[in-house]
Amino acid sequence: MQKLTVIKIGGNIIDNPTELAQFLTDFSKIEGNKILVHGGGKSATKMAQSIGLVPQMVEGRRITDAAMLDVVVMIYAGQINKDIVAKLQAKNTNAIGFSGADGNLIQSDKRNHPTIDYGFVGDVKKVNTPLLQTLISNEIVPVFCAITHDKNGQLLNTNADTIASELAIALSEVYEVTLNYCFEKPGVLSDSENDDSVIPDINSELYHKLKSENVIHSGMIPKLDNCFNSLSQGVQKIKIGHHKMLQNETIVHTLITL
Amino acid sequence: MQKLTVIKIGGNIIDNPTELAQFLTDFSKIEGNKILVHGGGKSATKMAQSIGLVPQMVEGRRITDAAMLDVVVMIYAGQINKDIVAKLQAKNTNAIGFSGADGNLIQSDKRNHPTIDYGFVGDVKKVNTPLLQTLISNEIVPVFCAITHDKNGQLLNTNADTIASELAIALSEVYEVTLNYCFEKPGVLSDSENDDSVIPDINSELYHKLKSENVIHSGMIPKLDNCFNSLSQGVQKIKIGHHKMLQNETIVHTLITL
Repeated sequence: MQKLTVIKIGGNIIDNPTELAQFLTDFSKIEGNKILVHGGGKSATKMAQSIGLVPQMVEGRRITDAAMLDVVVMIYAGQINKDIVAKLQAKNTNAIGFSGADGNLIQSDKRNHPTIDYGFVGDVKKVNTPLLQTLISNEIVPVFCAITHDKNGQLLNTNADTIASELAIALSEVYEVTLNYCFEKPGVLSDSENDDSVIPDINSELYHKLKSENVIHSGMIPKLDNCFNSLSQGVQKIKIGHHKMLQNETIVHTLITL
Repeated sequence: MQKLTVIKIGGNIIDNPTELAQFLTDFSKIEGNKILVHGGGKSATKMAQSIGLVPQMVEGRRITDAAMLDVVVMIYAGQINKDIVAKLQAKNTNAIGFSGADGNLIQSDKRNHPTIDYGFVGDVKKVNTPLLQTLISNEIVPVFCAITHDKNGQLLNTNADTIASELAIALSEVYEVTLNYCFEKPGVLSDSENDDSVIPDINSELYHKLKSENVIHSGMIPKLDNCFNSLSQGVQKIKIGHHKMLQNETIVHTLITL
């Protein structure tokens, strides 16, 4: 089975040109099959404000009405995605930028929540694994933005972490997949105030122990639950850390395995 | 040699939801290999105005400074392209939206004009025919917006008519290509005031005659010069007319051949 590296970067990298340039250099040097998934950053909110939209958030999630969907599509699939693709092409990485609508690569259902109307938000339903495999076998490097579709003509705003994990799960049927979540911290910390407290390895036994001792708590719990869910569905390993962990294996990060 | 249909639609279709819906229905029914190239329409200008940019035009061409490039990329490659792709997917047409940066499909040179600084405008240099052929042979329907890149990380605003003709020329090496220019008129008119005066067939002999008699004049001359250039470089035939000509062969249009 061939290897595949899936890397998710968040808004903190997108919003910082120096970090993004460094990341793209490191990303272009990764050998073998790879996929990039990028979040949005602040420019969608900025653009929404500059055209007079008031972003609505409920429980930390953006409510995506039709006007806001227009903005996230143009910023995520247009500006950010094409900028990344052009910069990777300059580094001889044969990137193609995708939304989930392109090639029906990621189909979603519009979220149907009992109490909150999230608007045009999608929950991933199906990944087009055969087409992705065809593209990858032609040495294409897919670059996904966090937009999917419902296959009925409607684009949907979709969580980038979820896109990365759903791609990793689906592709683990045909590749040995490592999923990398890059964020602003060097890994999962035993003391959230101390960046030197990275826990290097977490398996599900240790995870349950650290949770019961309250060493791992609050926002890190759904993140790690999501990781163990991906691992249980076939993803080989997951790394969490600062994007510089991509430069070499010795750079501190958290490795998560079953 | 397999057949390929390249279709270019302009802003007049993009700006009219009813026309666009009808066009996409007709487009989805075209059998065999096909490529869509779309222009921009008025939304880029509208967006530029709403964020306080003043569009600059010189000799009918948009001057693309960095701020305006951001806008055209987000509108053309983001909003319009992904909307078209999602709507084609709903009609079971396996569309993928591309800028020229994606897969290095269309590489351009930044225009270097002796007197006018066009800004970030690209003139097409090279089409990635092998990758397009791979995609098409996998039953992908490429949908191109009018954005290319210079392969050094810079996106460039590029004329959609030119993109359509350069794709048609490059792909005529491996396909028998018909190029369709859809615009607001039913074809090339002998009387520009009379939509019933469509000239059904023009070859280069008739073209020279009609030009010398001033039947074909002004804006139609560069358009037709461009068509004959494409035909001389291998494109099989070119049709000019209203997009409803795609519905069937009997609908009036102008057929241009060498």
